Amino acid sequence: MTTVSIIGGSGYGGGELLRLLLSHPNVEVKQATSRSHLGEYVYQVHPNLRKRTQIKFSDPFNLETVDVLFLAQPHGQAQHNIEQLVPLADKIIDLSADFRLRSAEDYQKWYGEPHAAPGWLEKFVYGLPELHRGEIAGARYVSGVGCNATASNLALLPLVKAGLIDLSAPVIVEIKLGSSESGVEGNTGSLHAERANVIRTFSAFGHRHTAEVMQELGLTDISLTMTAVDLVRGVLATAHARVKPGVGQKDLWKAYRAVATENPFVRVVKEQRGIYRVPEPKILSGSNYADIGFDLDESNGHVVSMCAIDNLMKGAAGTAVQCMNLMLGLDETTGLEFAGLHPL
Amino acid sequence: MTTVSIIGGSGYGGGELLRLLLSHPNVEVKQATSRSHLGEYVYQVHPNLRKRTQIKFSDPFNLETVDVLFLAQPHGQAQHNIEQLVPLADKIIDLSADFRLRSAEDYQKWYGEPHAAPGWLEKFVYGLPELHRGEIAGARYVSGVGCNATASNLALLPLVKAGLIDLSAPVIVEIKLGSSESGVEGNTGSLHAERANVIRTFSAFGHRHTAEVMQELGLTDISLTMTAVDLVRGVLATAHARVKPGVGQKDLWKAYRAVATENPFVRVVKEQRGIYRVPEPKILSGSNYADIGFDLDESNGHVVSMCAIDNLMKGAAGTAVQCMNLMLGLDETTGLEFAGLHPL
Amino acid sequence: MTTVSIIGGSGYGGGELLRLLLSHPNVEVKQATSRSHLGEYVYQVHPNLRKRTQIKFSDPFNLETVDVLFLAQPHGQAQHNIEQLVPLADKIIDLSADFRLRSAEDYQKWYGEPHAAPGWLEKFVYGLPELHRGEIAGARYVSGVGCNATASNLALLPLVKAGLIDLSAPVIVEIKLGSSESGVEGNTGSLHAERANVIRTFSAFGHRHTAEVMQELGLTDISLTMTAVDLVRGVLATAHARVKPGVGQKDLWKAYRAVATENPFVRVVKEQRGIYRVPEPKILSGSNYADIGFDLDESNGHVVSMCAIDNLMKGAAGTAVQCMNLMLGLDETTGLEFAGLHPL
Amino acid sequence: MTTVSIIGGSGYGGGELLRLLLSHPNVEVKQATSRSHLGEYVYQVHPNLRKRTQIKFSDPFNLETVDVLFLAQPHGQAQHNIEQLVPLADKIIDLSADFRLRSAEDYQKWYGEPHAAPGWLEKFVYGLPELHRGEIAGARYVSGVGCNATASNLALLPLVKAGLIDLSAPVIVEIKLGSSESGVEGNTGSLHAERANVIRTFSAFGHRHTAEVMQELGLTDISLTMTAVDLVRGVLATAHARVKPGVGQKDLWKAYRAVATENPFVRVVKEQRGIYRVPEPKILSGSNYADIGFDLDESNGHVVSMCAIDNLMKGAAGTAVQCMNLMLGLDETTGLEFAGLHPL
Repeated sequence: MTTVSIIGGSGYGGGELLRLLLSHPNVEVKQATSRSHLGEYVYQVHPNLRKRTQIKFSDPFNLETVDVLFLAQPHGQAQHNIEQLVPLADKIIDLSADFRLRSAEDYQKWYGEPHAAPGWLEKFVYGLPELHRGEIAGARYVSGVGCNATASNLALLPLVKAGLIDLSAPVIVEIKLGSSESGVEGNTGSLHAERANVIRTFSAFGHRHTAEVMQELGLTDISLTMTAVDLVRGVLATAHARVKPGVGQKDLWKAYRAVATENPFVRVVKEQRGIYRVPEPKILSGSNYADIGFDLDESNGHVVSMCAIDNLMKGAAGTAVQCMNLMLGLDETTGLEFAGLHPL
Repeated sequence: MTTVSIIGGSGYGGGELLRLLLSHPNVEVKQATSRSHLGEYVYQVHPNLRKRTQIKFSDPFNLETVDVLFLAQPHGQAQHNIEQLVPLADKIIDLSADFRLRSAEDYQKWYGEPHAAPGWLEKFVYGLPELHRGEIAGARYVSGVGCNATASNLALLPLVKAGLIDLSAPVIVEIKLGSSESGVEGNTGSLHAERANVIRTFSAFGHRHTAEVMQELGLTDISLTMTAVDLVRGVLATAHARVKPGVGQKDLWKAYRAVATENPFVRVVKEQRGIYRVPEPKILSGSNYADIGFDLDESNGHVVSMCAIDNLMKGAAGTAVQCMNLMLGLDETTGLEFAGLHPL
Repeated sequence: MTTVSIIGGSGYGGGELLRLLLSHPNVEVKQATSRSHLGEYVYQVHPNLRKRTQIKFSDPFNLETVDVLFLAQPHGQAQHNIEQLVPLADKIIDLSADFRLRSAEDYQKWYGEPHAAPGWLEKFVYGLPELHRGEIAGARYVSGVGCNATASNLALLPLVKAGLIDLSAPVIVEIKLGSSESGVEGNTGSLHAERANVIRTFSAFGHRHTAEVMQELGLTDISLTMTAVDLVRGVLATAHARVKPGVGQKDLWKAYRAVATENPFVRVVKEQRGIYRVPEPKILSGSNYADIGFDLDESNGHVVSMCAIDNLMKGAAGTAVQCMNLMLGLDETTGLEFAGLHPL
Repeated sequence: MTTVSIIGGSGYGGGELLRLLLSHPNVEVKQATSRSHLGEYVYQVHPNLRKRTQIKFSDPFNLETVDVLFLAQPHGQAQHNIEQLVPLADKIIDLSADFRLRSAEDYQKWYGEPHAAPGWLEKFVYGLPELHRGEIAGARYVSGVGCNATASNLALLPLVKAGLIDLSAPVIVEIKLGSSESGVEGNTGSLHAERANVIRTFSAFGHRHTAEVMQELGLTDISLTMTAVDLVRGVLATAHARVKPGVGQKDLWKAYRAVATENPFVRVVKEQRGIYRVPEPKILSGSNYADIGFDLDESNGHVVSMCAIDNLMKGAAGTAVQCMNLMLGLDETTGLEFAGLHPL
């Protein structure tokens, strides 16, 4: 059994990691830390884990060594204690934003302050298997992914990989997202009475996850527009681009199917009938799938590409476990078999 | 024009009062206070009031005299400064819980601490026109009503008034309620990600509003069970009682219709077809109606009586304005004409 | 008193019209028709109107003459019976899509079949006061507006009116909308269990309302992408365009404020703090306001312009009543004073 | 591998069965039938099963023999074709209401028409393992359970089993439930625009599931009051009873813990802090747990007992698979390990 621990286990990402790792057939969870819930049973914070574990939240300053250490702290912490953490584990997977960007300049530009451990940026692999499967398999340090970045990256991947769009032309990604992205801290705007029923475009452009899309896909003129809607789990990216002259439906089908064939968690959704004709996040809750689809306006080359994910799974903890599987030489899908629910 | 001011205008009850009073034909709003939003435009906190008023939140310690002063502070404050407030206005309507109970002993029992101004308890009239219309019309000091208490009181009023149930027999009121009852402060459990989709029976019995039902209807064995559901505005009380022997459908129809006839904001909802056969709070948002209905199991005398209201309107600000109208000799419904929305 | 009747009163648009007209100070409602609910009380279908009217749904083939006739039938009907309806009223306001487009060719292109009364197209004025106030005031025949078209038109109006964008450059409008747009008929996909929690991009481009935006604003390369989200009432349009070189924040502020100043129901929402910094439809339920806002990426001229409305009010019945007011020489806002609710 | 087929696979219960059986380690799914979706891929109706199965819906009149046959048809069908189905399988598990009651008289009383195969009623075991584990293990024919009946039965089981309440005294069960109970057929009241935001007490008493509670627990004066709330999956039963004189908190704790210890899917939830202090259905979506809890008013013996379940899992398909496991001699929890999600 591979031993694992989680630093920062009381947040939503940490809770989802715990759910996955506690039922993972090749893993034994040693510790989960939380300063605010120190000494409480994990199931008192994550009630779905009642009768599944008797682990209590432990002190982050009192960690045993393990095979794999997951960091699920708020952004900005891991870069300050990475040196102390490295001796504790063979492999580290950091779900925060601290080691996603390869360039310290980019980090400063998008996060507004200098990176505290710039030398570590190049040691981490960006942890999206659909882009870096081979590197992840051989890596000791893997970063997590931004949920909105992942929905955007996977919406655009077929177009970029098959060379169907011009990388320097403007791309607009409209992202609609649920409240679990805001985390357990919240603010007045996260109160149910204010957050219910919203359609709130809280960021027109400039969202930090944009940097991950530029870095990973090589796009230069891209904006992510963020709109909060009434949903807890799930994010849909609707990307607008223009295909190169001559690109038609068949080219798109081929490109999308290729990505779905190469990646066990990617599915193409483009049906002519029924209720579920397009990618939709609600049925993905708890699953690690990324559903992608597209539509092409042949009159002007406007392509609309969609990707739906569960932000806590494929957008965070699920992808992190997928990376762990690769790093351990396990089948990529181990412990990630849950199909999602219909209806929900 | 009658001049009015509101102390505590940034909460949900205060906001609803502002909405009503700013469009009331006989009223001029002089001030609305808020310490946390001092100096901000009212519409920055209550965005529905944009382009309706240029009033800014003022300092509660700097109040002009007015004809009617509304107190919409958190519970426990008005009893500490009632003496200072009285000189500021001819009439005072307090929406908080401070002056709802007539007995200082009851207050201490249900609120867990002695009342700070017990001598003032008897000076206030309980502000539910359906029970105290005449007294309110002649009163200088009127208390607000608890929203859950109001739904319970109006669900049971026809049964009690017509003497159809035994007042000492057990009555169970199951209350389902929306998130606006929690107010603007909130806590972790009020975050959208935790509060969405809930069916959470957070109080099996012992809710403070029970005291208002016992006091107003004379019931002695009654419990209010509180269940939070996914809704922002609205509360439904489903009351279970046993009718006296011999009481049948016709007696109930007569009793319910009588209450609806005597009270402009009470409606009987008991349809045989269509979607809306029973009282339902969603269509009452923004309106001051209380919809009541019933069902009788003739095999055992089990009567189920329902009352749906908007907790911020008939359960708080709407009833307060209704009281003001009575106190000013205006038509009871002035400024409370909004019909509610369908669908919503 | 102006006499009015409504053909098609049992749908959501018809119900909203009834709510508005029954409380309109200058209007007397004579008839509301419904074949499926013939003989039922209006309040049995629209439960918010209980205790507000004793009108029953009447037969559409048995209409008295009135001053103003509102047509709220499903699309495709009015064009077949316009000749028979004209003698019944001095003025006609049709809420359906039948007379919104000025060109029979456009109608056939977007609606897929030839128009049945092409000669009548030029007799109708497009009923958006913010674009055609003067013409509406003098018109006998006024068409309604598409709800998504209205959100798009008002999002783009300040940019087009002030000449800040190039009309031939691509414009992408991302529209998020609630379930009341689907009407009372619905289908399996409209069931609560399927429609709840959705983020469903059901139309990437080609939506019929696009034609109204092209016609009214003169844009030639514009797409409307439609995404259903979990909400009953409300639509938000988020429009993406590129400003002309040299256009800056100040030009935008000036253009948006000008539109808000000229139009009583348009408000600019662009706050630096608080929860409600941008246009948001939830607080507009039942109100006739259109809230607009913008953000400009000065690095590349990407402007994001937003407009939030209640699709049944400013997007349908509210604007129709606003048109009626203009046609009758009344103040434009008469009977449309409801402020909307916070929270909701 | 045990071979299984499902008759009626396109409904919500059938879909949930498919999800569970397709990933069950001891089972091979041979056929799933649907007349309305004949020839369609299962994943076109249940989109969560995309990339999980290539099975298409087959004709119910063209069935192969299997080890276990699940019937997931609408109520009233299985009793008409049970004779034809029996030869097709060693074991039959019927999720419909047709064989839940042991008495044909009771069936006629509650379902309003005579049972078509009364002789078969005694051959079926009521399929709730928490009540009939041993009998189920040896049975050939097992009925499913009503979801509301299951929530009620498990809420009351500790009280009845430990003899803490008088079986002839009145018991009131207030049930709050989600929209997936209405099934895929729906009606106008099931449209999202009508069903969203509801608190609709659509049945005050007389619900058919009451018969299952009377039969299984021996209660004689019990009512189930049904209230629809805004949720897709989940049901909460809040039961009100009076304990026998002298019964205290300790007796209740002992009784509840005993039931949880004996049953792998029952958990006691009664916390003093945190958000999740009581049973709540939202975190149970997709899981087979039944969470129970209680509160006792020692002043009058009023006990409030709660049970939360996922109506499609513990209330239908999950319990059916649990029964299958018992009938096959497998561990009861096989294939039912999903923990549920937090947040959701």
